[in-house]
Amino acid sequence: MKALVFHGPGQTSWQDVPDPAIRDASDAIVRVDAVTICGTDLHIVKGDVPEVAPGRILGHEAVGTVVETGGDVRGVRPGDRVLISCISACGRCRFCREGRYGQCRGGGGWVLGHTIDGTQAEYVRVPFADLSVHPLPSAVSSQDAVLLADIFPTAYEVGVLNGNVRPGDTVVVVGAGPIGLAAIATAQLYSPGRIMAVDLAASRLEAARDLGADATASADEEPERLVEDLTEGLGADVVIEAVGVPEAFEMCTRMVRPGGRVANIGVHGKPAALHLEDLWIKDITITTGLVDTHSTPMLLRMMAAGRLPGAAMVTHRFEPDQMEEAYEVFSRAGDTGALKVVLSGPQHDTLAVASGER
Amino acid sequence: MKALVFHGPGQTSWQDVPDPAIRDASDAIVRVDAVTICGTDLHIVKGDVPEVAPGRILGHEAVGTVVETGGDVRGVRPGDRVLISCISACGRCRFCREGRYGQCRGGGGWVLGHTIDGTQAEYVRVPFADLSVHPLPSAVSSQDAVLLADIFPTAYEVGVLNGNVRPGDTVVVVGAGPIGLAAIATAQLYSPGRIMAVDLAASRLEAARDLGADATASADEEPERLVEDLTEGLGADVVIEAVGVPEAFEMCTRMVRPGGRVANIGVHGKPAALHLEDLWIKDITITTGLVDTHSTPMLLRMMAAGRLPGAAMVTHRFEPDQMEEAYEVFSRAGDTGALKVVLSGPQHDTLAVASGER
Amino acid sequence: MKALVFHGPGQTSWQDVPDPAIRDASDAIVRVDAVTICGTDLHIVKGDVPEVAPGRILGHEAVGTVVETGGDVRGVRPGDRVLISCISACGRCRFCREGRYGQCRGGGGWVLGHTIDGTQAEYVRVPFADLSVHPLPSAVSSQDAVLLADIFPTAYEVGVLNGNVRPGDTVVVVGAGPIGLAAIATAQLYSPGRIMAVDLAASRLEAARDLGADATASADEEPERLVEDLTEGLGADVVIEAVGVPEAFEMCTRMVRPGGRVANIGVHGKPAALHLEDLWIKDITITTGLVDTHSTPMLLRMMAAGRLPGAAMVTHRFEPDQMEEAYEVFSRAGDTGALKVVLSGPQHDTLAVASGER
Amino acid sequence: MKALVFHGPGQTSWQDVPDPAIRDASDAIVRVDAVTICGTDLHIVKGDVPEVAPGRILGHEAVGTVVETGGDVRGVRPGDRVLISCISACGRCRFCREGRYGQCRGGGGWVLGHTIDGTQAEYVRVPFADLSVHPLPSAVSSQDAVLLADIFPTAYEVGVLNGNVRPGDTVVVVGAGPIGLAAIATAQLYSPGRIMAVDLAASRLEAARDLGADATASADEEPERLVEDLTEGLGADVVIEAVGVPEAFEMCTRMVRPGGRVANIGVHGKPAALHLEDLWIKDITITTGLVDTHSTPMLLRMMAAGRLPGAAMVTHRFEPDQMEEAYEVFSRAGDTGALKVVLSGPQHDTLAVASGER
Repeated sequence: MKALVFHGPGQTSWQDVPDPAIRDASDAIVRVDAVTICGTDLHIVKGDVPEVAPGRILGHEAVGTVVETGGDVRGVRPGDRVLISCISACGRCRFCREGRYGQCRGGGGWVLGHTIDGTQAEYVRVPFADLSVHPLPSAVSSQDAVLLADIFPTAYEVGVLNGNVRPGDTVVVVGAGPIGLAAIATAQLYSPGRIMAVDLAASRLEAARDLGADATASADEEPERLVEDLTEGLGADVVIEAVGVPEAFEMCTRMVRPGGRVANIGVHGKPAALHLEDLWIKDITITTGLVDTHSTPMLLRMMAAGRLPGAAMVTHRFEPDQMEEAYEVFSRAGDTGALKVVLSGPQHDTLAVASGER
Repeated sequence: MKALVFHGPGQTSWQDVPDPAIRDASDAIVRVDAVTICGTDLHIVKGDVPEVAPGRILGHEAVGTVVETGGDVRGVRPGDRVLISCISACGRCRFCREGRYGQCRGGGGWVLGHTIDGTQAEYVRVPFADLSVHPLPSAVSSQDAVLLADIFPTAYEVGVLNGNVRPGDTVVVVGAGPIGLAAIATAQLYSPGRIMAVDLAASRLEAARDLGADATASADEEPERLVEDLTEGLGADVVIEAVGVPEAFEMCTRMVRPGGRVANIGVHGKPAALHLEDLWIKDITITTGLVDTHSTPMLLRMMAAGRLPGAAMVTHRFEPDQMEEAYEVFSRAGDTGALKVVLSGPQHDTLAVASGER
Repeated sequence: MKALVFHGPGQTSWQDVPDPAIRDASDAIVRVDAVTICGTDLHIVKGDVPEVAPGRILGHEAVGTVVETGGDVRGVRPGDRVLISCISACGRCRFCREGRYGQCRGGGGWVLGHTIDGTQAEYVRVPFADLSVHPLPSAVSSQDAVLLADIFPTAYEVGVLNGNVRPGDTVVVVGAGPIGLAAIATAQLYSPGRIMAVDLAASRLEAARDLGADATASADEEPERLVEDLTEGLGADVVIEAVGVPEAFEMCTRMVRPGGRVANIGVHGKPAALHLEDLWIKDITITTGLVDTHSTPMLLRMMAAGRLPGAAMVTHRFEPDQMEEAYEVFSRAGDTGALKVVLSGPQHDTLAVASGER
Repeated sequence: MKALVFHGPGQTSWQDVPDPAIRDASDAIVRVDAVTICGTDLHIVKGDVPEVAPGRILGHEAVGTVVETGGDVRGVRPGDRVLISCISACGRCRFCREGRYGQCRGGGGWVLGHTIDGTQAEYVRVPFADLSVHPLPSAVSSQDAVLLADIFPTAYEVGVLNGNVRPGDTVVVVGAGPIGLAAIATAQLYSPGRIMAVDLAASRLEAARDLGADATASADEEPERLVEDLTEGLGADVVIEAVGVPEAFEMCTRMVRPGGRVANIGVHGKPAALHLEDLWIKDITITTGLVDTHSTPMLLRMMAAGRLPGAAMVTHRFEPDQMEEAYEVFSRAGDTGALKVVLSGPQHDTLAVASGER
């Protein structure tokens, strides 16, 4: 089959590789029907994630069709259209027993495209399939569903739930890239009073408004002043960091009200300054986290009911074998305006046509 | 009356001042029967807390006897022996309505010895008396009760409750001064599996063991290694910072397990480095806070039942007019081994003798 | 002034009574601008609530204008347009300190039109005004705001919050009278997957659909079957009882899924059978409660932002002196289709046109 | 092998049966080293649990040694000494993913001695072994550990956690049989202010005091009066029902304070009257539940640390082949004073003397 293989910093190729095969009784082999690229993939390609060894197939977000299952798989069968979660879960370790699949100590967690071969390929082996893939209802297209592999559950769990968004709250989302936009979309499940988005790119602030932000501010135009004005000087109830740089995180800690929460989603490469000389007295809560994907079944139902945006997040679409072009477009988001890019074969998304449900 | 007056950095005196008087219908005037000194008072004296104006009477922890009440006070009467909480509460602002008295916007919060005259005096005016003093049961001596004015509720609310200590947990308390020791004592209300104390002073580690710590480590002898050994490399469930310096806070964030909590109690004067490059993926929660004293009634009942230590925290006792000596001893804790110093007149703690209950 | 006075079972009159006057420093006297009738008022008139003594002025829901305040009132001034909460709060007792104002032991709780004179009058004395009235933003009309005095916070707190409605949930509301409809409206703040309403009256089921119910079932047409069908036999996540008869409550306990919640809002006069022989093993939670109105400020903001329905709940409008006619229409809801009836003088609801802020 | 076989109402025999064998890759075969009898077993023998078919081997509580594992079992190996949980968990269904193993829809839940053969035998097949057995530390004897199979986690999860016991609370436990006593023991993990036990048998009230109850009341001597006296008329914060008859449950709902909780553990055969005419206004929460055993690892650690009582709960000990005698003694608890009866072979509990680790 073809797959995108990492060959060391700055080097990848879409090339022939052996087909994956079942190794454990809990594995499934899935044909990839729709796949996307994550900002984390770009970090890997740059060489920022040393755990990723040369030779590794990248990618941890996809929708596909099961083609084979190990003897112990009970929840899916060949032919099932499934969402492949970015997180695999052994289901037995202490973290999995608490639903903290992202911290799995039994061979799962974020492994796809990281410590085992991933989804940017024609086929992928998914370990612990019963807890790591989700059968898709026909009402959800593969191109929409692929957004549920990572960005929607990440934004919802690590941003909205950790941030404890409640009805009436003032919520600020710093960073309006794909994750920040998904946070804006899913925060609305808790009916905040208003959502304010902060970014440098006007196009992303426009996307934020389209997805439900009530106010937007350019990061270089005193966003903190706007928060103060909106909240009579008190600060925001919840601030969600969706950038991953110290300046953004530090801005979040200045924007939050006494008793409020800062939920960090951003993937950081450097320390930030935590101004405890101001914050020690303020009753704030700061959270970090990797997604667990425990919310994926609920988010799937909400997307099936038309209550989460799909297409609005996708700016570019490609054929499956245009992987290198897709990386090119996605990596130059500043120029191309790319949010999510989706690669999918038209023939692969017709499963529901016959049954008349789509 | 006599009172300890702040006259600017490095300058205080125990001197004659006018007696306090009722200003608002919700005020009470309380004769001070037992009073103590907080580490924060030392910061004020140094000049680190610029909101404290010269001329201010210091002190925010005391037990006393009500001598006069404003027309709107319903909960206490002259003659009642009361605990004066370090936090006053207007009871009407949005924060007070949520029980977040420490963040009161209606004239309360931490005001005593800070923005209004405090308790290191023969008498003190307490605003919002109904929500800011607590009648004392006769089973609790004034010398024990004074520990409930600040350190016990602070350690319990900001350390134990924010840290979400649960049965079986591994809890590390960094800093075994009065607040850290009170955290060790109150953490036991939730039956952690073990408590480990970290400090530089051997005498404080010994006090920690006396108060229930299962393990201790000198801060300069690889305490992180001990946490790893105790937890099979995972890290502690809850780490409580009770020092207030960047190094201690940063150590806490290295000791916590994935999914764990760091509860900061320390009063900080400088920023700390938050190593988000390690922590973003670890599902940790960091909390800060000023005490609200919502737990004071419960802690009072527990102390009355003999289930919280009192005397064990007090290393030095003085007569009321030995305030300057008490400051001297407390400010040289490294030499004197001082934990809490209590000033009280013997004649003031006999209220219960007549009734035969003590 | 004129007021509706209860003279014993079956006997009320709209008659002359003395004007109310300030008694406590925390009182406010409010001119009633809009008022409504609660189902509880009908129970009182029937004689079902023996604590209500003859001579009592009825009513616990109103909007008005402050005309006088006691010396200790800080939050409102004469001229302020305010919502009068159905619950008064002393702010000092152990229940008020926890935000459980409905259980106030200090002279508050549900007192208006119950143990002290109420709001179905030209003027009313409101005790503990700072915690018992809410200044109204000009964006909210008095006729809408009166729904926030009781039914919206009751439905939200006792139904939606006690029921712990979460995104994606299946919620069943049994009883589509004013409270049930308000539960349907406020449940949507948590984005349930679907809401099903059950009632006997077709007109009420139609109102339920208008307010956002996704499915409706007549109480005599096997509503339990519909819940089973909607949930693949599992049962509803949350069932809210908004009727107050044993049969309705018992139906709720049959509709709930294992691990689900039954939130009772209904005012009951008789015991229900709790089928513990079926329920002991099912992990269900049943809650009861009187509203605390801690959510009123948030609900007010949401109504000001146009995110809660107002007019849709009001079926009949009257002049202030048509109180007896209004009772007549409201008490025959089966014939008249009455949901909420509102009495207000046109001159009292001029929405601050002149001053812009009133 | 020998096993206790149910042959229909009133008929059981300790008889020869075929040895169990691995059926699924997730199974383990365990040699039973210590086993006990549950009150539920008595109900089964009486014929009250129709799902139990004639021919079924009874029992759902045991400690044993793994002798064989299926190909998919990763967590235990032959030779491991393990606790067999009364609840088996598939680990994949929606309930298992939430840690609600007791409600498992994938073939687990309470199945041992119920819908598949149980533990009152020389060997037992345990399905889903990785999530259904727990390796035992050598510090815990088999005779103590057997109490962790059902009664300790049941009392803790369904009583103490559902009841939300908090430091300082007044807790009443109605019923001081094995489950009630385990509730008294585990409630202390949350440091309630006092625990009151209610039962008819003086011997059980004495056992309650031995295990930490601060007060006791005979069920026929006005226990409600005592609760009132202890709480100044308010009622208990938490009431735990550990009997399973309507009268006991109804007493619990009379003893609870406004805002309090009633946690039902009892297995009921009949409906109770729920006095909603009194309770609708009282803000109470009632919970029911089957144990999930999610707390078993923590309880095991606490028992290993000597912080949970073991032997104090066991009144009678038997050899493994004295099963019929043990049933006889346990079923006549009123005469024999039996709490828990444990059957174990001396050779099976040698506590790793030789190897130090076994």
